[in-house]
Amino acid sequence: MSQTPDSAVRTYLEHHRADFLDDLSAWLRIPSVSARPDHAPDVRRSADWLAAALSRTGFTTAEVWPTPGAPAVYAEWPSDDPEAPTVLVYGHHDVQPADREDGWDGDPFEPVVRGNRLHARGAADDKGQVLFHTLGVRAHLAATGRTAPAVNLKLLVEGEEESGSPHFRALVEAHAERLAADAVIVSDTGMWSADTPTVCTGMRGLAECEIRLYGPDQDIHSGSFGGAVPNPAAAAARLVAALHDEQSRVAVPGFHDGIVELTDRERELLAELPFDEQQWLHTARSHATHGEAGYSTLERIWARPTAEVNGIGGGYQGPGSKTIIPSSAMVKLSFRLVAGQEPDHVEKAVRAWTADQLPAGIRHEITFSGATRPCLTPLDHPALQSVVRSMSRAFQQPVRHTREGGSGPAADLQDVLGAPVLFLGISIPSDGWHAPNEKVELDLLFKGAEAAAYLWADLADTWRHAP
Amino acid sequence: MSQTPDSAVRTYLEHHRADFLDDLSAWLRIPSVSARPDHAPDVRRSADWLAAALSRTGFTTAEVWPTPGAPAVYAEWPSDDPEAPTVLVYGHHDVQPADREDGWDGDPFEPVVRGNRLHARGAADDKGQVLFHTLGVRAHLAATGRTAPAVNLKLLVEGEEESGSPHFRALVEAHAERLAADAVIVSDTGMWSADTPTVCTGMRGLAECEIRLYGPDQDIHSGSFGGAVPNPAAAAARLVAALHDEQSRVAVPGFHDGIVELTDRERELLAELPFDEQQWLHTARSHATHGEAGYSTLERIWARPTAEVNGIGGGYQGPGSKTIIPSSAMVKLSFRLVAGQEPDHVEKAVRAWTADQLPAGIRHEITFSGATRPCLTPLDHPALQSVVRSMSRAFQQPVRHTREGGSGPAADLQDVLGAPVLFLGISIPSDGWHAPNEKVELDLLFKGAEAAAYLWADLADTWRHAP
Repeated sequence: MSQTPDSAVRTYLEHHRADFLDDLSAWLRIPSVSARPDHAPDVRRSADWLAAALSRTGFTTAEVWPTPGAPAVYAEWPSDDPEAPTVLVYGHHDVQPADREDGWDGDPFEPVVRGNRLHARGAADDKGQVLFHTLGVRAHLAATGRTAPAVNLKLLVEGEEESGSPHFRALVEAHAERLAADAVIVSDTGMWSADTPTVCTGMRGLAECEIRLYGPDQDIHSGSFGGAVPNPAAAAARLVAALHDEQSRVAVPGFHDGIVELTDRERELLAELPFDEQQWLHTARSHATHGEAGYSTLERIWARPTAEVNGIGGGYQGPGSKTIIPSSAMVKLSFRLVAGQEPDHVEKAVRAWTADQLPAGIRHEITFSGATRPCLTPLDHPALQSVVRSMSRAFQQPVRHTREGGSGPAADLQDVLGAPVLFLGISIPSDGWHAPNEKVELDLLFKGAEAAAYLWADLADTWRHAP
Repeated sequence: MSQTPDSAVRTYLEHHRADFLDDLSAWLRIPSVSARPDHAPDVRRSADWLAAALSRTGFTTAEVWPTPGAPAVYAEWPSDDPEAPTVLVYGHHDVQPADREDGWDGDPFEPVVRGNRLHARGAADDKGQVLFHTLGVRAHLAATGRTAPAVNLKLLVEGEEESGSPHFRALVEAHAERLAADAVIVSDTGMWSADTPTVCTGMRGLAECEIRLYGPDQDIHSGSFGGAVPNPAAAAARLVAALHDEQSRVAVPGFHDGIVELTDRERELLAELPFDEQQWLHTARSHATHGEAGYSTLERIWARPTAEVNGIGGGYQGPGSKTIIPSSAMVKLSFRLVAGQEPDHVEKAVRAWTADQLPAGIRHEITFSGATRPCLTPLDHPALQSVVRSMSRAFQQPVRHTREGGSGPAADLQDVLGAPVLFLGISIPSDGWHAPNEKVELDLLFKGAEAAAYLWADLADTWRHAP
């Protein structure tokens, strides 16, 4: 009996489908909510469970790495090919909080299959997408007859992603040598839709700041003094209003320095996605689109930098009125960054601009936090081509490209390890990340395992033929 | 022994100084804090005390007028001259809250004389300035040998001024016939300084609104959607920023319609006041002046209309950061109005302007409250000349002019009764209205009584000779 490699993979997946779902369900029953201190023992239990599962899969090393917060899991499975490239898979084993009264149809930590969907907190974000790699690598071995993967396979699965990954960068820096890799595969993202499989090619970066503005030493009477002294709430408003020009382009001088602009090819590819504005607005819970002139909505959220006010406050906000000039005000701003923008440079530009905007008599303090660099893999990068080929084989159709508008710890791996970041994810927007009744589509979950099964041999091949 | 009328008044005041201070102290011991429900019995006791004091003074009618809140006191003392004009004096008998721990050197409701100052809550605001009228009218009679005042004298002393006078207008409307007057004298204001006696010629009016802005139906992720949908916090900021043009002039179309501009003579008179910018900034607790181009600080606070943001809020204002596009935001605005501006017209202008400013996808609600019309007495008004002459005689020096930047219930008297509003006040900025250790300068308090003693005969004379 002879099989193509693809049908061998599919046969393996078919035979192990039930066992895999049992395993995943066992893991999903552990409520590893990193944001809730009372769940800390569960997050540790989740790490232990995963390390054991990875050992069972065949990983030669599977360790729980402590951090000052929740533990991460690290595993290795070296290739038997001394020339093989090294790949590091990233995911997380902690989950968002979930309470039945939030609107769940059942216990969020008691997985249930309805039709073709597995419902549980963490089903898609991110336990399902971490665990499909165990099935994928076993299918890879079964279909190729190997006893070790075609690449040196490493996994790093953190336990604090849903809490902002506060210790992740330090962890990566501390273990940089063991984590060294030729490429990073992030399995914590999604696709356009079940009908339109896609590969994400980059994430936006992030710079955040809070600006506090001080005017009078105390709230003063707007009748006695109004019209004659600077008002810090008005100054805050003018600052925010000045963030954008009339084309809704960020107006901070120097902000755009170094940007890698979208290529015509990328714009064409994005334009080919079946974008439905009404449906997108529904998902965004919004009532109109609004943004930088000359760009489509997808370009605006994925490939253009932004300046958003996340919070603004000053003066009296209670019921009724209070005729004061407030003594202080504040704004919280976040800037999404695209390839070529450096958070440090953006910080300098915003600091200089802020000082320049404020009138005499308004003192300010500005604090930056949470910088994340953007990451972008060029469309012609060989490793990206491997991912696209593997996904196309799994889905048996051409795969399109997306980007991710958010920002994530993947950028730390790129920065510290100096490796390109690639994305292999099969979640879809309706999976309800962070929402009640989170689910994963079972067909897509096994497509993810299938793509992973093809990827290691493809990547090894690609590396062998790299110039 | 013959006396000038002025020396007769002074002699009378000298002889009754001690008794008057005993009376005032007794009243100041009643903690008539209208803002604190537990002090409601004290506010009623204060009204009863005042009605009795006015009866003792000689007022033929002295009544406590209930309101849905705290009671007012009304008194009349008709002239014996059938041709006499009618004058209504306005003041209030309620006081600001005061607790020893706020920084008072003693019990705020146990009056104490230190040097030439009487310290107690309400000493200047407003019990001292109400009560000097009892001494003034007696001195007027004593010095002129009359048995009834030269004018039909009425007093209306409300009990809710420190709580925003919520029932005052309705009270005035209900009693409009009994309150009818040819002129209103407000004794609830101050002078430039002890060395520079002044008469206030007008108060600014007020229009207030709250604007609520709605964007996405819930807070949404600024990574997933940022840059492509309208942000209500940014819309709020742009709205506030658009309130003024580059000259810091209010930019709402139609806002300035009908304004009575400052005359050259008024500007000259204001410019003659010994204004010290550093000292004024100290009082304003501010670190720079800022306002409409082409106007001095005094013109800006007294004679120009303003648009101030009293409060702004939207999105996340807690510690740290939250990368959201908030679903809503709000601003509280207040507009000070000057003579010629109508609150209703300003409201229409602001509503139209707001609707015009907001982008598609941002819904808004706007609520107006607390409209007060401005009042202004022309410099050449005969009754104003009477007040100026009486103050000049009391202070034995020329009296200058000021205006009041705040807004008050005096405007209701002007509106309902159709009478010009004049101001007779002797408090000075250092008296500490609403602050700990409030005081009144005793010399100035008796100058107030003296000016009141001259005023009634002067006004009656003025009326007799009116064209």
